[in-house]
Amino acid sequence: MSGNVADRLTVGQLSERELLAQIFPRLANSSSVLLGPGDDAAVVAAPDGRTVISMDTQVQDQDFRLHWNNGYASTGFDVGWKAAAQNLSDINAMGAVATGMVVSLTMPPQTELEWMRDLTEGLSRAITELGADRCAVVGGDLSSGRELVVTVSVIGDLEGRAPVLRSGAEAGDRLAICGALGRAGAGWALLESENSISSLNADQLALLDSFRCPRPPLLAGPAAARAGATSMLDVSDGLIRDAGRLALASEVQIDLDPGVLRELARPLEPAARLLGRNAVDWVLGGGEDHGLLSTFGPRSALPPGFTVIGSVRSKADNDTNPAGVQAPVTVAGQRSDVVGWDHFAD
Amino acid sequence: MSGNVADRLTVGQLSERELLAQIFPRLANSSSVLLGPGDDAAVVAAPDGRTVISMDTQVQDQDFRLHWNNGYASTGFDVGWKAAAQNLSDINAMGAVATGMVVSLTMPPQTELEWMRDLTEGLSRAITELGADRCAVVGGDLSSGRELVVTVSVIGDLEGRAPVLRSGAEAGDRLAICGALGRAGAGWALLESENSISSLNADQLALLDSFRCPRPPLLAGPAAARAGATSMLDVSDGLIRDAGRLALASEVQIDLDPGVLRELARPLEPAARLLGRNAVDWVLGGGEDHGLLSTFGPRSALPPGFTVIGSVRSKADNDTNPAGVQAPVTVAGQRSDVVGWDHFAD
Repeated sequence: MSGNVADRLTVGQLSERELLAQIFPRLANSSSVLLGPGDDAAVVAAPDGRTVISMDTQVQDQDFRLHWNNGYASTGFDVGWKAAAQNLSDINAMGAVATGMVVSLTMPPQTELEWMRDLTEGLSRAITELGADRCAVVGGDLSSGRELVVTVSVIGDLEGRAPVLRSGAEAGDRLAICGALGRAGAGWALLESENSISSLNADQLALLDSFRCPRPPLLAGPAAARAGATSMLDVSDGLIRDAGRLALASEVQIDLDPGVLRELARPLEPAARLLGRNAVDWVLGGGEDHGLLSTFGPRSALPPGFTVIGSVRSKADNDTNPAGVQAPVTVAGQRSDVVGWDHFAD
Repeated sequence: MSGNVADRLTVGQLSERELLAQIFPRLANSSSVLLGPGDDAAVVAAPDGRTVISMDTQVQDQDFRLHWNNGYASTGFDVGWKAAAQNLSDINAMGAVATGMVVSLTMPPQTELEWMRDLTEGLSRAITELGADRCAVVGGDLSSGRELVVTVSVIGDLEGRAPVLRSGAEAGDRLAICGALGRAGAGWALLESENSISSLNADQLALLDSFRCPRPPLLAGPAAARAGATSMLDVSDGLIRDAGRLALASEVQIDLDPGVLRELARPLEPAARLLGRNAVDWVLGGGEDHGLLSTFGPRSALPPGFTVIGSVRSKADNDTNPAGVQAPVTVAGQRSDVVGWDHFAD
C-alpha cells in the first residue's frame, strides 16, 4: 500500500535471521511462554502434566487461492488468520485452551516482504481477537519453495479436565452447534463466482469475511467440556462429513432436524438466490466455519451459544428410524446427498 | 520394488482417510501417548509441567533433491528419516527427551503410494534407531501440492531440568562436539558431483548415508545437561555459523583448535581429494550432521562421546586474542572464510 521502498522488498532479498526479526516482535507474548523464540526449541507451561497437540497445513491453490475467480486477491492477513484460527479450533474441540503455536512458512523467494508481514499480523490478530489469551507464537521455520505452504502446530492445556473425544456420543444425546455453519461455504462460492467484490452488498461481503477470517468460538470448547459434553469436534469439512465422523467414532446414528437447518440457512438465502444455489446445501456441506459440534446428555444444560440441531440414536434403533436407513447421518431419517471436503480423492 | 499393482497407486487415487490408514499403524506407540491419532488433537504426557516444542520443514529441491546430480534418487525413507532426525535433534539440544511428533505431508497427487509408505517407514525407523523411545507420531495433516513439503513438530520433556540455552557460555568454558561434523557436508558434495553411486567405495557411500540419514546423538543432550553444560545447540547449518550463533547469544568469542579440526577432517580426506575440495571446509561449514555443540565449565567432566574442539573467551579479552579479531568465531585467533547455510539470501 505504501510507496516505501522497503515494502517492495521480497523475502528472497533477506536472510532468514532478518526475516525472523520481522516476525517475532509482532507476535504477542503470553503467560504460558517459559522460553520464547530464538533457541533450538521453546518451552511452554503444561500445568496439568499433559499437552494437547494438533497440526494443520494450508497450501496455495488447494486450501486458498491467491487470486479468486471473482477478482479478489487473498491477503497475507487472510492466510495468517485462517492458519491460526483453524489450529486454535482443533484445540478448542478437545475442550482445551491453546498455550503455544509454532509456524512454518514456505514461500517463493519473490513473495513480497509486506505480504509476509501481513501474514504475521493475521496470525497475531486471530490469536488476540478470537480470545486465545494464553497462546503465543513461540517458534517455527522459514523455507523457500515454489508455492506458499503454511503449517501451524498448536499445543494446549486441558486445565485438569478429560479431553472431549469424538467417540463419546450416546443414543438419547442432543447434537448442538456453536458458531457459524454454512457461512464460509457461501463465502467460498461467492469468491469462485463471477460476482466482483464491488457488486456485493454488506451481507455478502460478510460471508466472504467468514471464509477469509473464520471465527471459531474458542471459549465454547472449555465451556462445553465443563457442561458435560459427551463428544465434540470441529466442523472443518462440512456438517454431514464431520457429524458422520462423530457418528462413526461413537458407533451411533445422528439425525439432523430439517427445521433448524432451514432456520440456519435463512441468512444465506440472498446469496444462494444470487448464485442459483441451495442455502441448505451450504449448511450441510460447507466447511471451514470451524463451528463446534457437540453432543450433550439429556440432563445437561447447554452452555450459551449452542443450538440443538439434531439427535443421537442407536445404530440399530429401527423404531425411531422407520426407513431403515443405515447412513451415519440422516436428515429427518433420510440420507443426504451433500458431502463435504476431502483433501485428496472424492 | 515389488510388481504388486497396489504399490503403483498414487496418493491422488486415495482419500485422506485411506492414506492416514496407511500411515498411523506403522508408527510405534509410546508410553507418553495419552490419546493418539484420530481426534481433533492428541494428548501427550508432560510430566514436569512444561513442554519443549520445535518445528522444522524440508522442501523438495531446497532441502533435498528427488534426483541428484550424481544419479542418486532420494527415497521416501531418506526424507522421512531426516525429517524425524532433525526435529528430534532440536529437542536433544535443549537437554530434553522427545515425547511426541506431528507430521504434515504436502505431496503432488502423482506421488506413488509406495513412496509415502517409505517415508512413513523412515520416520518410524529414525525414531526407533536413534533411541527416541518415549516418542511416537500422534497426528498430522495430509495435503495436495505442487511439490513435496514435509513439516514436523516435536514436543519433549525436560525431566525436571532447566533447558540448556545457547546463551549460557562463559569465558573459560571448553567447547565440545558430540556426533558427526562435516560428514553430511561431504556426502552432499558427492551427491552434487559427477561421481555416480556405482563408482563410490564403502567409505564414500557411508558419507552419503550421513547426509541421507543423519544420526543426531539423542542421548547426549540430556547427558550433557546432567553434566552441567553451560550452553548447547544443534549444528544444522555448519560449525562456523552455529558456533557463531552460540557466541553471539552468549556474548562471548569462540576460538576453534585447528589441530582438532584437522583430526576431524582426516576421515574426509579421500572424498575431498576425489572432488578437489578441502576436508576442513566441510568440518567448518558443512551442515546437517546434527551433532551437538556444547560448552562446559572448567570443572565439569565431559560426558562420553564429547570431544573438545575449542575454547570460550571474553569478547574484550585482548590478551588471549592478540590479533584483535572481532569475529564471533575464530580458528587459532584468525577469522575463517567458511560460512554455512542460510535458507534465503547469502
